[in-house]
Amino acid sequence: MSEEVTAAILVIGNEILSGRTQDVNVHYIATGLGEVGVRVKEVRVVADDEAAIIEAVNALRSKHRYVFTTGGIGPTHDDITAECIAKAFGVPLLRDPRAVELLLQQIKPENLNEARLRMANIPEGAELIDNPVSRAPGFHIGNVYVMAGVPRIMQAMFDGVKPTLQGGPRMLSASVIIYAPEGSVAAALSAIQDGAPDTEIGSYPFAREGRFGTVIVTRGTDRARVAEISAQVVAMAREMGAETVDEGIKEP
Amino acid sequence: MSEEVTAAILVIGNEILSGRTQDVNVHYIATGLGEVGVRVKEVRVVADDEAAIIEAVNALRSKHRYVFTTGGIGPTHDDITAECIAKAFGVPLLRDPRAVELLLQQIKPENLNEARLRMANIPEGAELIDNPVSRAPGFHIGNVYVMAGVPRIMQAMFDGVKPTLQGGPRMLSASVIIYAPEGSVAAALSAIQDGAPDTEIGSYPFAREGRFGTVIVTRGTDRARVAEISAQVVAMAREMGAETVDEGIKEP
Repeated sequence: MSEEVTAAILVIGNEILSGRTQDVNVHYIATGLGEVGVRVKEVRVVADDEAAIIEAVNALRSKHRYVFTTGGIGPTHDDITAECIAKAFGVPLLRDPRAVELLLQQIKPENLNEARLRMANIPEGAELIDNPVSRAPGFHIGNVYVMAGVPRIMQAMFDGVKPTLQGGPRMLSASVIIYAPEGSVAAALSAIQDGAPDTEIGSYPFAREGRFGTVIVTRGTDRARVAEISAQVVAMAREMGAETVDEGIKEP
Repeated sequence: MSEEVTAAILVIGNEILSGRTQDVNVHYIATGLGEVGVRVKEVRVVADDEAAIIEAVNALRSKHRYVFTTGGIGPTHDDITAECIAKAFGVPLLRDPRAVELLLQQIKPENLNEARLRMANIPEGAELIDNPVSRAPGFHIGNVYVMAGVPRIMQAMFDGVKPTLQGGPRMLSASVIIYAPEGSVAAALSAIQDGAPDTEIGSYPFAREGRFGTVIVTRGTDRARVAEISAQVVAMAREMGAETVDEGIKEP
């Protein structure tokens, strides 16, 4: 696992913390990073608060290869992400002529007021992230990628960034559905995990249409090993007489 | 705001970080805490990893009045939350006879194997949290409340805990829908915010059925002030000629 490439996601916004909005960006980013061999190790959600944002950015960027932030890059007073990132990196926040150019593709010059121009304030040394939906760009500086919070825009930005990321080996996962309660498979499963430290076996109970069961997910980077360990799970379940569905390996 | 009561939520689970599962617990807890005057200031999601869990629990419990954790309290090898909480508090993890009693209400004695008994391992000094769905309890120790990850069970546990929490004044919110882009209202909105530091004004752009607009949410603990500031937002929007819907104050 020495070549593991890790990431953190930082969600910025009072509306997530108040319960007003259900976050869906974490799920999208985590899934997409898995496809390029980058593993999300940590997520934080913080308020639109300068000290909280700076502290989180600096904590996460020192621990992970990549950090992705969402939210707080619009034109209003509560959009403070760009200035916080600049402070976290100790660089000035500058009006970026490339970003002004992009805004002018969407906004008539007479409507490009000072509030909208705030969206062109970018930390010195940052590269812009394309926004094919509404032009106002995100940016990345060092290992931190700063994106919008509106899901449709965030997704478009992330999709543009994704091919540029340098991932490690992709995590493959194999799922087995066992129609038996978690507590019945736990001991045998633990023994399988002990014999396979190069895979991670997760156990997820479910209730579907009145039936109870457990999904066992075996994850690892070596396809043959994932298949082998997942086959052990299937054999264990069948041996105990439980109805079992082997869903096989899923590409991330 | 000196009497503000704050909380953090710690979501424990590889399945959220891998994108396999969309978290819905944060939204439920945040909404419920708002109803009792407790404000979520921070959320973290960490892997099923001892060091990561202990570090997060200790960081969050020192900063907030309440910490709520979800996930990792089942019977399988990847359920390590209880032992991590014990280590975070520096107390032993003990088999709790009250918890064994509860498990026996749901599980026949001959089926109460060692794996299932792990769900009765509780840090010394903790109080149990009732699980009306499947009995296996959560617990709270100090200011940390440890709950299941399965949403139906987590919700039942949280609903039981909620009336026991000591909140501060509840945050009221007033929403105004303005059919105008964010960038057009930003300057006037910023001026309103500057004159009302005792409220928080959030601006959320939207696109619905082909129409673009902005929802302005004014939040605060003083009903008269929230109404007054939200009325300023309405007046501002109508003055600029934008179609405006005053949704009024919503109880948390």
